[in-house]
Amino acid sequence: MNRTHHYTLTFSCPDRVGIVARVTGFFAEHGGWILSSSQHADADSARYFMRVEVRADSLPFDHAELKRRFQVVATEFGMDWRISDSSVRRRVLMLVSTQEHCLYDLLARWKSQELDVDIVGVASNHEVFRGLVEWHGLPFHHIPVTKENKPEAFAKLEALFESSGADTMVLARYMQILPPSLCRKYPGQIINIHHSFLPSFAGAKPYHQAWDRGVKLIGATCHYVTEDLDEGPIIEQDVMRIDHSDSVEDLVRCGKDVEKGVLARGLRNHLEDRILINGHRTIVFG
Amino acid sequence: MNRTHHYTLTFSCPDRVGIVARVTGFFAEHGGWILSSSQHADADSARYFMRVEVRADSLPFDHAELKRRFQVVATEFGMDWRISDSSVRRRVLMLVSTQEHCLYDLLARWKSQELDVDIVGVASNHEVFRGLVEWHGLPFHHIPVTKENKPEAFAKLEALFESSGADTMVLARYMQILPPSLCRKYPGQIINIHHSFLPSFAGAKPYHQAWDRGVKLIGATCHYVTEDLDEGPIIEQDVMRIDHSDSVEDLVRCGKDVEKGVLARGLRNHLEDRILINGHRTIVFG
Amino acid sequence: MNRTHHYTLTFSCPDRVGIVARVTGFFAEHGGWILSSSQHADADSARYFMRVEVRADSLPFDHAELKRRFQVVATEFGMDWRISDSSVRRRVLMLVSTQEHCLYDLLARWKSQELDVDIVGVASNHEVFRGLVEWHGLPFHHIPVTKENKPEAFAKLEALFESSGADTMVLARYMQILPPSLCRKYPGQIINIHHSFLPSFAGAKPYHQAWDRGVKLIGATCHYVTEDLDEGPIIEQDVMRIDHSDSVEDLVRCGKDVEKGVLARGLRNHLEDRILINGHRTIVFG
Amino acid sequence: MNRTHHYTLTFSCPDRVGIVARVTGFFAEHGGWILSSSQHADADSARYFMRVEVRADSLPFDHAELKRRFQVVATEFGMDWRISDSSVRRRVLMLVSTQEHCLYDLLARWKSQELDVDIVGVASNHEVFRGLVEWHGLPFHHIPVTKENKPEAFAKLEALFESSGADTMVLARYMQILPPSLCRKYPGQIINIHHSFLPSFAGAKPYHQAWDRGVKLIGATCHYVTEDLDEGPIIEQDVMRIDHSDSVEDLVRCGKDVEKGVLARGLRNHLEDRILINGHRTIVFG
Repeated sequence: MNRTHHYTLTFSCPDRVGIVARVTGFFAEHGGWILSSSQHADADSARYFMRVEVRADSLPFDHAELKRRFQVVATEFGMDWRISDSSVRRRVLMLVSTQEHCLYDLLARWKSQELDVDIVGVASNHEVFRGLVEWHGLPFHHIPVTKENKPEAFAKLEALFESSGADTMVLARYMQILPPSLCRKYPGQIINIHHSFLPSFAGAKPYHQAWDRGVKLIGATCHYVTEDLDEGPIIEQDVMRIDHSDSVEDLVRCGKDVEKGVLARGLRNHLEDRILINGHRTIVFG
Repeated sequence: MNRTHHYTLTFSCPDRVGIVARVTGFFAEHGGWILSSSQHADADSARYFMRVEVRADSLPFDHAELKRRFQVVATEFGMDWRISDSSVRRRVLMLVSTQEHCLYDLLARWKSQELDVDIVGVASNHEVFRGLVEWHGLPFHHIPVTKENKPEAFAKLEALFESSGADTMVLARYMQILPPSLCRKYPGQIINIHHSFLPSFAGAKPYHQAWDRGVKLIGATCHYVTEDLDEGPIIEQDVMRIDHSDSVEDLVRCGKDVEKGVLARGLRNHLEDRILINGHRTIVFG
Repeated sequence: MNRTHHYTLTFSCPDRVGIVARVTGFFAEHGGWILSSSQHADADSARYFMRVEVRADSLPFDHAELKRRFQVVATEFGMDWRISDSSVRRRVLMLVSTQEHCLYDLLARWKSQELDVDIVGVASNHEVFRGLVEWHGLPFHHIPVTKENKPEAFAKLEALFESSGADTMVLARYMQILPPSLCRKYPGQIINIHHSFLPSFAGAKPYHQAWDRGVKLIGATCHYVTEDLDEGPIIEQDVMRIDHSDSVEDLVRCGKDVEKGVLARGLRNHLEDRILINGHRTIVFG
Repeated sequence: MNRTHHYTLTFSCPDRVGIVARVTGFFAEHGGWILSSSQHADADSARYFMRVEVRADSLPFDHAELKRRFQVVATEFGMDWRISDSSVRRRVLMLVSTQEHCLYDLLARWKSQELDVDIVGVASNHEVFRGLVEWHGLPFHHIPVTKENKPEAFAKLEALFESSGADTMVLARYMQILPPSLCRKYPGQIINIHHSFLPSFAGAKPYHQAWDRGVKLIGATCHYVTEDLDEGPIIEQDVMRIDHSDSVEDLVRCGKDVEKGVLARGLRNHLEDRILINGHRTIVFG
């Protein structure tokens, strides 16, 4: 992720003739060097989606001025848009429970700068990973969740997210259901990994469900969290072959590898502004 | 499938000490050369499942005598068993509708003897494939199915299956729901290919359902037909990656490749007696 | 492939600021509705590659006039370019030997119009598939190849390709090595399927080589034919898992499924002008 | 890996009638409950390979006595055999360099007891991971390797391996070539992960080689180390799809995920005595 300093424009707007020409013309006019661009026209919603990376040093102005100037184009086409600056690190709050695989995996990627973000902290309803997290020099927040204290616990979590300045919350096998109000407040900002190939086996104990149904592949799904449990827009999925000799425990074990890969790829795409939400579906620009 | 002449024993029985010893001892006693053997103990049902291939020419008796003698062992262990003879070709009745992919695929495998079976005929509710099927020297049966004639149509189909001496019915994208009575009559003998990764998207128009949910992989499922639609024991599944740029039509097109591969592998395993049904799950010996 | 009537522009040119703006501006100026566009900047060669699909009925002129007008842009940027018309069917000559899997597979796709091309004929060094091909209403050409007659045989093949007006030659497991002169004459027009995951196991008997090395996955490679055997630009590849219990014959059999899928996808991308050759590598716009 | 206490018998011997009967008969005679069994007859070498798991508490004697008694059977059939005891943890020495992905991955599996072994220590030619390793309570050994000190460095490594009582050495992206003498001394005990789909791209900088050749999938290979670099018996392989937009750096990054998965699965199979070496090939009992 540590590439040339660049700005990433993403937008969607009603589809019509001339969008790409206008957008790329805007950049060309100022000498903007396009590093990559992707687009998608959605026939169903009649909307156009685009993502453009432009070298920062090819433009004669800074991020703020770019945004100010692009506003004209955006208004003209009725765009829902944003321009991010690759020199400003994304800020991520991680939520974990007692399973280690996603946490270790993301820490390794962060440590090697493959995941070039600021992890503002790791919150958990258990103390298990305090040592590991703190050894990495990251703040660990123990927020116990019980049947009785849920409102306070999640208020604490929300306060933590707000005060940390994080833009993304990652549920790395957090195993707690967030309250609807929290889900609604941060649309497209909370990422979950569900341990099944959704829509199969939503809800609890998906590996038990999968074993019981006798499927020949198990999977995992990374999705944005909405107030409808396991129904949010899907970001990434993958599967792994199993067979009759695998017990539920084997499924749980094998599934971990699928889960951590799917979460890491989904999160990466999110952090690079590659995902645009289109209703309950996503566009993922490769 | 055209291997050395061999007998294939498959059985299940209550699990206990000494099953493999007794079975392999039985063969060893007569000089039986075991080509391959596979076994599975199912903790849930406390049953043992086994498949053994023995060279025919290593035994001092024929198929009938083998079965007679093995009956003793089978009775001792309370086995549900069968012994098939590789020199006796399996007989398959194929059912198709108007889609060509599974039909061409299975015909190619049959023509090259990769699928070393007798196709006793192809039945369809449409005339579309008469020419192709008859060019291959196979009988084609047009059995129209309308809202009004269903009972007669399926009675005709059942009569055809019975009179053909087929042991297996393959629904190669037949697109008609068989009546419960037919499904009950031939448990473990009717194979269907469903165009989704079950249990997701059971029922009609699975690719439309998949597109609408925004999944990132589509799949297909080969299963035994039971009276519960799309609920039969799963034999084989596979998936293919798609993305936001794929329309429903793209999903239908790409899905065909998954469907034909899954059906072919599932059918092959069925014909080689590699599949043992364990309740609503299957054991597939590789 | 039977989509809205459209033109497909593909080009490469030295990379510089303003290419996309100029090209999309050209279309926008004339009301051109862009159905899809893809681009790639190759850092190594400092070249830019692009593919654009434009609705034919959104432009106020026809294919010939479009090409005449676009020439100005092309010259300005030093483009290596072409614009194809989706209403003009591509013309394909197929070459086969005695293996049926790729032939049946491509015929099924052609029959169902998934592969919306004119197959101008099937040429073979064997008579095996005359019946099947002619049953499909396609010309079959038997061109025997022996050690002695190679120059004449390949001259005949070349004459056939020329006279047929085909633009693409597909070696669907043809099993003969084309003479260098022929390869040189039609760069980017001859597609081969090699039965290994190149560069592993180039040359003869790749499945024997794979078995002998003990690999855990086997593969197939679709590539453009150049005079360097098995060294042409790779278009598409795929693999399949095998294990120690698989014999060479099993590898051959399983490999067929990989081969036909890889060839079909590669050919489709070629026919839709999705492949741009960049030296000995390819750009494949999805 | 923390299953019921069991013994695992693995052996190979010349193929002949009655092997399975004799082996399973031996266990049955003593009331031995077979948890799973797998076998393979290799036509090429005319050898038979088998793996059997037996519940420890179903036998009336201990591990030592089991081995003593089984010796009779083993001698009778000329077996190359071993019987391991699941209650005796395997001992592993890990070798790393400066890349974190395999190390973090294996530590996570060890921490969660998915990998139920004793890691006797981590040796490295760099100091980078001392902190992480020691935080996990494991000994870290810095053994610098330079052009000049190779003989001493590897002598030190060998002494460490010997004194640690480890039975397996894992090269988790160690990036140093072990001396032939060391490789010869521990056949089937040293496991390496190579960052290509062997036999393609053996040697240095495989991702650069892969990018240059323009392959559409990259892979990784886990194999036993022999004195022929990258030529040892392959244990496990896997691949990942890439495309023209991926740079060499992208290949390196994506490849890490393949590498760590392949190494973990290969190592697990090794530790569970699932791998039998057959010349330069392996049998991997699933």
